Amino acid sequence: MITQEGRDRVRESFARQSMMQTLTARLDALDDGFCRILSDIPPGALQQHGVGHAGLTFSIGDSAAGYAALTMMAPDQEVVTAEIKINLMAPARGDGLVAEGRVIRPGRRIMTVEANVWALDGATRSHVAVLLGTMVPVPIA
Amino acid sequence: MITQEGRDRVRESFARQSMMQTLTARLDALDDGFCRILSDIPPGALQQHGVGHAGLTFSIGDSAAGYAALTMMAPDQEVVTAEIKINLMAPARGDGLVAEGRVIRPGRRIMTVEANVWALDGATRSHVAVLLGTMVPVPIA
Amino acid sequence: MITQEGRDRVRESFARQSMMQTLTARLDALDDGFCRILSDIPPGALQQHGVGHAGLTFSIGDSAAGYAALTMMAPDQEVVTAEIKINLMAPARGDGLVAEGRVIRPGRRIMTVEANVWALDGATRSHVAVLLGTMVPVPIA
Amino acid sequence: MITQEGRDRVRESFARQSMMQTLTARLDALDDGFCRILSDIPPGALQQHGVGHAGLTFSIGDSAAGYAALTMMAPDQEVVTAEIKINLMAPARGDGLVAEGRVIRPGRRIMTVEANVWALDGATRSHVAVLLGTMVPVPIA
Repeated sequence: MITQEGRDRVRESFARQSMMQTLTARLDALDDGFCRILSDIPPGALQQHGVGHAGLTFSIGDSAAGYAALTMMAPDQEVVTAEIKINLMAPARGDGLVAEGRVIRPGRRIMTVEANVWALDGATRSHVAVLLGTMVPVPIA
Repeated sequence: MITQEGRDRVRESFARQSMMQTLTARLDALDDGFCRILSDIPPGALQQHGVGHAGLTFSIGDSAAGYAALTMMAPDQEVVTAEIKINLMAPARGDGLVAEGRVIRPGRRIMTVEANVWALDGATRSHVAVLLGTMVPVPIA
Repeated sequence: MITQEGRDRVRESFARQSMMQTLTARLDALDDGFCRILSDIPPGALQQHGVGHAGLTFSIGDSAAGYAALTMMAPDQEVVTAEIKINLMAPARGDGLVAEGRVIRPGRRIMTVEANVWALDGATRSHVAVLLGTMVPVPIA
Repeated sequence: MITQEGRDRVRESFARQSMMQTLTARLDALDDGFCRILSDIPPGALQQHGVGHAGLTFSIGDSAAGYAALTMMAPDQEVVTAEIKINLMAPARGDGLVAEGRVIRPGRRIMTVEANVWALDGATRSHVAVLLGTMVPVPIA
């Protein structure tokens, strides 16, 4: 089970990421091996057709996957994305985005993670992207 | 060879991406199957340790790869990222970033693309990331 | 719903893949957007430590994902893997392997697919690999 | 520079992979951070249209990338593929295949690697696939 100290660690790390504020992202839920992030689709994060940029979808998906992994690491470790792949399946259009990250396989050297991103548009939810990646625990400097 | 019309098409598309302005990205060079994008590492695009966020590196790498592909598409087509993978190899730290996208294999249905991203720090250049992905030509709506 | 004709199409294609026979793979279940493949871990498909080679795990995972996609394509189309990523999480050790492929998002131009591969070892099942990829429908020549 | 001991280590590991013999693969060249593997397109490794199976291309590409990484590891380490992505660009058709693996970025915890696979058909060479992955050094058990 994730401890209060673990939660605080994720919240503090998240708060220090200026990119998350630029993209209007906020931490919504945390559990053992799980993280949910919400964001708007802000006017400054659009692509050429006025829908959310792939970089917005990637940023919150990668962060959700990374913080999901951080919940399963030791207190003296932090998380680095070694690599991650994103399949973009639908435009990021609507009222906002939800990204859910999950640890598929924890490990001492590497952790396999996934994330899904949906767009909320009124009462409908469309599956915008799926991510599959590798997180590495590194000692806090 | 890329035509003036082709160049204009990429420049207009790039200019409409508010995300590129938010991230301080600018189009630096274009050729047949090639695109170079420069950016700062702006204060609003950092991760928790004050270096560039993976989402910044991803955004300019994906855009460089996508516009490289667009230079090889028909005038009535535009480019969509179907999927892309990024391996992050070094922190995005220094004076700015350079992303170079290249078409590995053009095609009518899909194009295989790659991108490399470097950080410039004084006289040194470090290899921050490599991307490998798939771009899809779609008819302009 | 998958038709009998659809099932036959997959079974005939599978039967023509000599690689599947070399690897002892057999088609176990098919449904709309779903395919399950079983295999042994045959003596000719091992890596240097005597467990199943990554190429075995990849081959059945990719095939399960591809045939899952084929179940959702038109009768005059066949399936080509554009790209696929595999995260290897545990050794392919035991009595045999199970690969399950699933369509995450069907589409006219491309289909996003995933697959999971498990090793069966007596009563235990370990999660060997997860794959995420892109399948392309192409007209039958 | 790769030592004779390093070469022997790779050759011994390769010789123990029964999958490489099944696929007719042989080690052709080794250097610091580099490995080249050749193979036929044997009758037992075909897909439904009689060209080389994606699993053949993957197997030699992954092995070339992995052994490229092994040349840069300590004598008491061996290499494990954490993940690898393959983009398939042309059919594996002709007289044989060549796979070249290369270390893009060595590292103590993980190594980023790439591989390219070509098909040789008489005097022509076609670019069949490109791979991008992550290798992990693990202590020899």
